[in-house]
Amino acid sequence: MGGISGVEDVLMGYIFGKKKATEVAHLVWKHVVQKGDAVIDATCGNGYDTLAMLKMVADESDRFRVYGLDIQKDALENTTSLLDESLNPNEKELVKLFAICHSRMGEVVPKDSSVRLVAFNLGYLPGGDKAITTMSETTLLSLEAAKKILVPGGLISIVVYVGHPGGREEFEAVQAFASGLSVESWICCEFQMLNRPLFI
Amino acid sequence: MGGISGVEDVLMGYIFGKKKATEVAHLVWKHVVQKGDAVIDATCGNGYDTLAMLKMVADESDRFRVYGLDIQKDALENTTSLLDESLNPNEKELVKLFAICHSRMGEVVPKDSSVRLVAFNLGYLPGGDKAITTMSETTLLSLEAAKKILVPGGLISIVVYVGHPGGREEFEAVQAFASGLSVESWICCEFQMLNRPLFI
Repeated sequence: MGGISGVEDVLMGYIFGKKKATEVAHLVWKHVVQKGDAVIDATCGNGYDTLAMLKMVADESDRFRVYGLDIQKDALENTTSLLDESLNPNEKELVKLFAICHSRMGEVVPKDSSVRLVAFNLGYLPGGDKAITTMSETTLLSLEAAKKILVPGGLISIVVYVGHPGGREEFEAVQAFASGLSVESWICCEFQMLNRPLFI
Repeated sequence: MGGISGVEDVLMGYIFGKKKATEVAHLVWKHVVQKGDAVIDATCGNGYDTLAMLKMVADESDRFRVYGLDIQKDALENTTSLLDESLNPNEKELVKLFAICHSRMGEVVPKDSSVRLVAFNLGYLPGGDKAITTMSETTLLSLEAAKKILVPGGLISIVVYVGHPGGREEFEAVQAFASGLSVESWICCEFQMLNRPLFI
């Protein structure tokens, strides 16, 4: 756990424009994820989320697993570099990276995995080619896959950047997906900045 | 201040369905409001928000002020009863209640007031006549009035219940208002539960 003061700092920092959306996401993860869990970073990007979730699940055992996916070779290279710098050999062994679309997570994550978190960071690769973005159609397939993989009590975490062509449509598709989930089985919480057009 | 543990309890409690939206609102107020401030409860309802904000601004001085508005006589009677039970004579003296529409707040709040919070609880009076609701048109007038009254660094807090005819339209009007505020001058943060249709 990041500690109680982390909640205050991060959430109020985000509201007042001093913290990033991903930091709020990490905060929520910490309330759900436990040591030894299996977790999925559906969109590795530069690997910061992959590393953050590894730190939340890693313990002395060999039970924990982090599955990282990204369709872009650059993204997985950046993620690998970051992990190489930051992880011990046991941790590195238990992170599995796959150069495939997030919609195919069901193919690479073992069937008996107890996955407690599937995280998405939707948009383009920061520092990469902004023309390559996640897209509504595959994102919706991924969300369906994530629903099937998660254990009860698990979390689907989605940070959406809308500042690219198709970004607003993807955001609306994600909203519609979440709005349609059964209220008995799912808690769907949305947090957004209304007047920052490029970043929600 | 409600204390750091309050942030953790209330926000995570809300996400996980154990705390009310108004409790989250109070939490944000506490990060903005100071002892001695003038504040406005634009929609007194049964007075719980009026009381909560009084407790945040009241000190030993006679500087602080709480202005409470509600168009319904029942609401102001309930608010008065609650305040009578809960306040000392000095505090009671500095709460001013007005039986007018919130859109007319500019008429009753003295021009030289340094108002740091204007709070809205939109929908119907809990326990009252559900046919009497706030409405988009007057709500937008009120938001414009609130913008003019607030000091720099002040907060407009809006909790919206959409579970009544016109509620969804009012919510969208509020969203559009917030989305249109200048990003240089305003931070507009929205927090909602996507799959609880009657309560956001």
